Amino acid sequence: MSELGQRARAASRLMARADTGRKNAALDAMARVLDASRDALAEANRKDLDAGRANGLDAAMLDRLELTPARIDTMIEGLRQVAALPDPIGGITDMNYRPSGIQIGKMRVPLGVIGIIYESRPNVTVEAASLCLKSGNATILRGGSEAIHSNHAIAACIAQGLAEAGLPETAVQVVETTDREAVGALITMPEYVDVIVPRGGKGLIERISRDARVPVIKHLDGICHVYIDDQADKTKALNIAINAKTHRYGTCNTMETLLVHSAIAQEVLPELADHYGQLGVELRGCAATREVLPQALEASEEDWATEYLAPILAIKLVTDMAEAIEHINRWGSHHTDAIVTENYTRARAFLREVDSSSVMVNASTRFADGFEYGLGAEIGISTDKIHARGPVGLEGLTSQKYVVLGDGQVRQ
Amino acid sequence: MSELGQRARAASRLMARADTGRKNAALDAMARVLDASRDALAEANRKDLDAGRANGLDAAMLDRLELTPARIDTMIEGLRQVAALPDPIGGITDMNYRPSGIQIGKMRVPLGVIGIIYESRPNVTVEAASLCLKSGNATILRGGSEAIHSNHAIAACIAQGLAEAGLPETAVQVVETTDREAVGALITMPEYVDVIVPRGGKGLIERISRDARVPVIKHLDGICHVYIDDQADKTKALNIAINAKTHRYGTCNTMETLLVHSAIAQEVLPELADHYGQLGVELRGCAATREVLPQALEASEEDWATEYLAPILAIKLVTDMAEAIEHINRWGSHHTDAIVTENYTRARAFLREVDSSSVMVNASTRFADGFEYGLGAEIGISTDKIHARGPVGLEGLTSQKYVVLGDGQVRQ
Repeated sequence: MSELGQRARAASRLMARADTGRKNAALDAMARVLDASRDALAEANRKDLDAGRANGLDAAMLDRLELTPARIDTMIEGLRQVAALPDPIGGITDMNYRPSGIQIGKMRVPLGVIGIIYESRPNVTVEAASLCLKSGNATILRGGSEAIHSNHAIAACIAQGLAEAGLPETAVQVVETTDREAVGALITMPEYVDVIVPRGGKGLIERISRDARVPVIKHLDGICHVYIDDQADKTKALNIAINAKTHRYGTCNTMETLLVHSAIAQEVLPELADHYGQLGVELRGCAATREVLPQALEASEEDWATEYLAPILAIKLVTDMAEAIEHINRWGSHHTDAIVTENYTRARAFLREVDSSSVMVNASTRFADGFEYGLGAEIGISTDKIHARGPVGLEGLTSQKYVVLGDGQVRQ
Repeated sequence: MSELGQRARAASRLMARADTGRKNAALDAMARVLDASRDALAEANRKDLDAGRANGLDAAMLDRLELTPARIDTMIEGLRQVAALPDPIGGITDMNYRPSGIQIGKMRVPLGVIGIIYESRPNVTVEAASLCLKSGNATILRGGSEAIHSNHAIAACIAQGLAEAGLPETAVQVVETTDREAVGALITMPEYVDVIVPRGGKGLIERISRDARVPVIKHLDGICHVYIDDQADKTKALNIAINAKTHRYGTCNTMETLLVHSAIAQEVLPELADHYGQLGVELRGCAATREVLPQALEASEEDWATEYLAPILAIKLVTDMAEAIEHINRWGSHHTDAIVTENYTRARAFLREVDSSSVMVNASTRFADGFEYGLGAEIGISTDKIHARGPVGLEGLTSQKYVVLGDGQVRQ
């Protein structure tokens, strides 16, 4: 692993000064090579699928593992989209003269070497590689053992694309071995790896965060809330509460707990419960909720702390916005939380006081996403406060350094 | 420690929504209380100085420990300067409409609870507390055992200032005990502490970075370089090389290694060596340097990796700028590095390719400093790439969250 790290570090120096045209040429070449390698990709993917079936992977795992022609199309399209994004590297902001006569600004620079640790889905290999490449970084990719053949087939396409554009093939390296020790080594080499982005289940991310000696941009759980204020517009409240829960159940920006002001509970909850009932969503409520919705199951404290990722919704009545904010800051995961209200002062206070990576007024939590925010693409949604917070696009894979232009000035 | 952490976490919620006027009122009140408490401060400081002498602290340590009237003046003035700085919290940038009709922006928010671990100098207590307060954070301060009485006397003034302004006294807490376990606890409570800023020697910072389970904004060593290009203006080269080394020897932005293009070595080195000789700076050179400066001692690889913090300078000749950049990126500490050149293309390449928190053209490395950069004050100079890099002012003690304003939009 340390040889791999050394090669990545060396490649990162070349990538940092690669110009935009060359990086885009590599992305375009990768797209072409992937398109021309559909047979090889299908063949490699078949090996993984066969092994997965033999090893008793469940249907959901096998589905994530599969590289259908449509998914290959999506990978190719993704590469072209990343090529079309503006290059963040080298941009200088806040360039100002100081009284000493020097000029100071901040130049955006790559982080260096980014380690990505992920599970099953082989298309992550292309997504992660393309974002790291465009942001001028070298990458070490460590996918799941169940996708090893697919990942190597994709890596071969990436390497060819890099070579065609005159960039070092070592700018994107896929770890050959799938033993667990490789992960342990990757996250404890600060001399070769600048940051780790884990993509996977909570267990994986917690383990990496615990053991890492390299900074981790992590995305833990998404326990998202919608708070329906007593001054909410009823139609907006119903639309948002339904969309935030039922648009997709398995995503991190899905609402898991609905908070409702007790003064509006009778007006909105029965109608909402009808909609949820038709969609098969199980409701679990606090005692006050169950007075309005007798059909709801009893919610415990554990429900406030659970990311269901399933058609289950916890509901709690609150007596004012302050109680809602306190509940969110205490039980939430600082991911995405929304208020529905027409009250200007409450909207303003909610935006300021809720301590989450995305805070929304009158919009569905489902909007918390790199594409919807205009970042172009995302490598994940960070619930950290340090460095990148919220959807992490190209900029989250960069840092800034100060640049100083003088004319011979010395310190007095 | 966990009770201390809980109190800090609770205070951080109140600090996050404290308005600018109240925070400034607290800073002004602290300045007044410090001014009125000079006798108590002197008395507490005397206890520390007496104990220090009894424990055999060296003269430099005793000097750092002493709270002279002038240093108390500086603390008071510092508080007023921080009060005068713009409040970073709540500022919203990049607010734009998206095709879905929602508006997205980024709001600057406090980090939450900041733990500061520092040694001897009691004035750090005020500096750190004031920066954390203005940036809306709660702080836990853990100073050195040798300054315990001074730190508690200062903490009492801070608490009174907070109380007078109606802010929670627990917004700034000084750890009562000086045992080492308190540090171990502080850096492993991610539930109560959001970031650690260690201020002290390299040993302290390395130990904290190794053991921390909380992100650390760290300032390791400053192995800074000046590279004199063969197209340098000779006068600028001499002025900058002398200022960068001799303006102050013990600061992290002092030059430790001078790189000189071999084609200009005869022109600048003998004259530079005369100046350094008059100032008592010991020179250590590579073989090629010693052909030009026979009086220089022989430099080893260890010299390239050493932060002398003393009147010692390592000198190396290089055959081109690429060799200089490679030396800096390999041996430096990514702190601050400067080129002296009149060549536009080389200046541009040096700015882009040197991987340091500050990169300069024709200016002394001694400018790398929060005040000189216009940040108003600094809590340290970060050599990390993640989050804050270079001089860390108020903004480095904050994060950003996404704010989303909608009108009932749901995800399609």
